[in-house]
Amino acid sequence: MARGGNELRQAMERVAGDIDSALDLVLAVPDDPRRRLYEAMRHAAIGGGKRLRPLLVCAACALYAVDRAAALRVAVAIECMHVYSLVHDDLPAMDDDDLRRGKPTVHKAFDEATAILAGDALHALAFEVLADPATHADPFVRAELCLELARAAGPSGMAGGQMMDLAAEETVFDLATITRLQQLKTGALFGFCLEAGAIMGRIPPEGRTHLRGYARNIGLAFQIADDLIDVEGSAEAAGKAVGKDAAAGKATFVSHLGVDRARAQAQLLVDQAIEHLSQHGSEADLLRAIARYIIDRDR
Amino acid sequence: MARGGNELRQAMERVAGDIDSALDLVLAVPDDPRRRLYEAMRHAAIGGGKRLRPLLVCAACALYAVDRAAALRVAVAIECMHVYSLVHDDLPAMDDDDLRRGKPTVHKAFDEATAILAGDALHALAFEVLADPATHADPFVRAELCLELARAAGPSGMAGGQMMDLAAEETVFDLATITRLQQLKTGALFGFCLEAGAIMGRIPPEGRTHLRGYARNIGLAFQIADDLIDVEGSAEAAGKAVGKDAAAGKATFVSHLGVDRARAQAQLLVDQAIEHLSQHGSEADLLRAIARYIIDRDR
Repeated sequence: MARGGNELRQAMERVAGDIDSALDLVLAVPDDPRRRLYEAMRHAAIGGGKRLRPLLVCAACALYAVDRAAALRVAVAIECMHVYSLVHDDLPAMDDDDLRRGKPTVHKAFDEATAILAGDALHALAFEVLADPATHADPFVRAELCLELARAAGPSGMAGGQMMDLAAEETVFDLATITRLQQLKTGALFGFCLEAGAIMGRIPPEGRTHLRGYARNIGLAFQIADDLIDVEGSAEAAGKAVGKDAAAGKATFVSHLGVDRARAQAQLLVDQAIEHLSQHGSEADLLRAIARYIIDRDR
Repeated sequence: MARGGNELRQAMERVAGDIDSALDLVLAVPDDPRRRLYEAMRHAAIGGGKRLRPLLVCAACALYAVDRAAALRVAVAIECMHVYSLVHDDLPAMDDDDLRRGKPTVHKAFDEATAILAGDALHALAFEVLADPATHADPFVRAELCLELARAAGPSGMAGGQMMDLAAEETVFDLATITRLQQLKTGALFGFCLEAGAIMGRIPPEGRTHLRGYARNIGLAFQIADDLIDVEGSAEAAGKAVGKDAAAGKATFVSHLGVDRARAQAQLLVDQAIEHLSQHGSEADLLRAIARYIIDRDR
């Protein structure tokens, strides 16, 4: 791991522990017939994943010395949103995956109806956590967080990207369209993580351009790295099935650029992401380390 | 139709027209590969349904002379939330319905993956509409609306009720548990509609007790009426399949009480709902007319 790797690993472990503890409280299983819903939500959300989005929220908050408790609540919300998208994405009618984060997917461990509902419930829970006064005393901050998350998740964000991804199985998209697809499908939530730090840090929209640039760059680098894992990785290391895009005949960054140019492009994107942070000092070191890690996840 | 029926019919038609116009704008189809997603969302959301929840929002707003434009934005949000729940509820893994609001369900008219995504996108869109400054100038109002809607939709609201509804296919619930199930599954969104009027009318939580009582009563009356339609109605009049609960061996208000007592109970609930409005004058006439209409929908 590159310089800053130790600090990164520590930050990741700390965030992962905090997220698990917070989710354990938020998802306390009720003693009534909703039990199975909560169990499915816990199966999906607790104890797995790299918690990259929560880490990004915390790293963005570190830029502006945002209170860690507030950062963690937003981190829980974005993780709920991300996990819901995984649960629905894995459904038989979508990607039809059996394995996620090294465990059976929710519809395998439970059933399809429960997986649909667990995803829906995590989706709503993300907003319930964000909009709660416990997240931030200022209602303007809470309202802005809700608005940005809704935009990032909705038809002009993640859901729109996933629709494009479905269409990609029938049409061979050019590189520009794949870039747009990935900016919506993965990039929008990454963008929210950075934006959330700025919102809580009271940075006006015009002061967030560099954060949006950083998010866009690491989002694309992340996706290229994901494409490379899909081509070169093992299911064991990835915690999910690999080789699926090629099998589906889906155009990706790697199918367009080839492995070597894709890898070089990802490195360039990471360098550019770090460039965007030049106005910040050591308070941005965690974001810099995350950018490097993005294309180096299997090390 | 009872006294106030003409005013009610006019109010319903006006709200339905306004909701369709607003959704037509919000769901303008983009000229890119997300087109199919928007078309599916439009299929589900535009031009159908009684728009009962939007009407409730407008009627609750009328109590406190809330600006109609603000009321309509909240009405659009609650309808998006309701429609998303119908789209997912109709999926093969859930209720497996072919017909909704007299049209093919989304997974029939499009496909299952598109239906899952269209539901997800409508879910996020509800919050996007609510949290937008265009809904209300005061961020406190926007944040509170988001919080209430998230609670009403999430695991301790509608999603929790739907999980109980799935469990009802395997266990015969007693009347108390069915009541709780329906309060979550249908009642929570009804509750939001009334609460939203109070939030925008700047009524503090302790001044909303009567609205919660009204919502709870009409929610249960609505469900009993729905159970009666399922037993006695035609698919044509209902716009959806009927006789499903009995076929699934599911306990309902009607299976517990019988048709006559269920009908009497629904009437009692409507009377109680109207009682809750006694502190209001003619500004509550629309809410009173809605309460009567709830059990009289097929007239």
